[in-house]
Amino acid sequence: MPSLPLPPELDDFLRRPNPAVVASLRPDGSPHTAATWYLWDGERALLNMDGSRLRLQFMRRDPRVALTVLDEGSWYRHVSLLGEVVGIYDDEDLADIDRLALHYSGESFSNRESSRVSAWLEPRSWHAWEGAGPWRS
Amino acid sequence: MPSLPLPPELDDFLRRPNPAVVASLRPDGSPHTAATWYLWDGERALLNMDGSRLRLQFMRRDPRVALTVLDEGSWYRHVSLLGEVVGIYDDEDLADIDRLALHYSGESFSNRESSRVSAWLEPRSWHAWEGAGPWRS
Repeated sequence: MPSLPLPPELDDFLRRPNPAVVASLRPDGSPHTAATWYLWDGERALLNMDGSRLRLQFMRRDPRVALTVLDEGSWYRHVSLLGEVVGIYDDEDLADIDRLALHYSGESFSNRESSRVSAWLEPRSWHAWEGAGPWRS
Repeated sequence: MPSLPLPPELDDFLRRPNPAVVASLRPDGSPHTAATWYLWDGERALLNMDGSRLRLQFMRRDPRVALTVLDEGSWYRHVSLLGEVVGIYDDEDLADIDRLALHYSGESFSNRESSRVSAWLEPRSWHAWEGAGPWRS
């Protein structure tokens, strides 16, 4: 797979509020997937979950994750990041989920009573596709 | 997680040509994700890959996979299937990829020289979300 850092065109793409799916590992080693918000800062992707989410337990147990990001306009263009969660912490003042909510919805996160947890995904490799072949920047 | 079979509303949803992301396991056990077409027949999901795809090797080695299907209209509604690939075979006459291409694009698969391989995902469990909570049929 291609090496890091990402080409500028893919970096720009990841900074948009795109649909995404994150994979983590269940205790038996099988994959678990779920749709997710993310926020790309150029080096890592911020994820944020309700404290009760199963995948949060999974990431604490085994930090290996993968994220596929789809172009909302045409999902035949997509970028996948394979890597590890390098930091998990309570989002006590909801600052992180607010950043994500503003990015995706233009508004702060509505549920102020939420118990939210942040996790940063650091990619080790990536692949990108456009139509039937690799997305060449 | 909820038991099978899927509620009728989710079954109907899965039969549409939705965007989807499939997770498989790399040889080191870490997750790999990629966008994919799929075709749901009520019990299993047909996947089809170019014979050179890495995830095909991964599925042959370890059949455990997960698929998250997004609603194209609003990706805040999504269904995930966790399960195993129960059959992998060469799609020699391109019948399976043509079924998928017709489902998604309305046309037969354009590359008639392709070497394609089919894989059937059989779910063992599932979860479904709509907005901020479980999708209750």
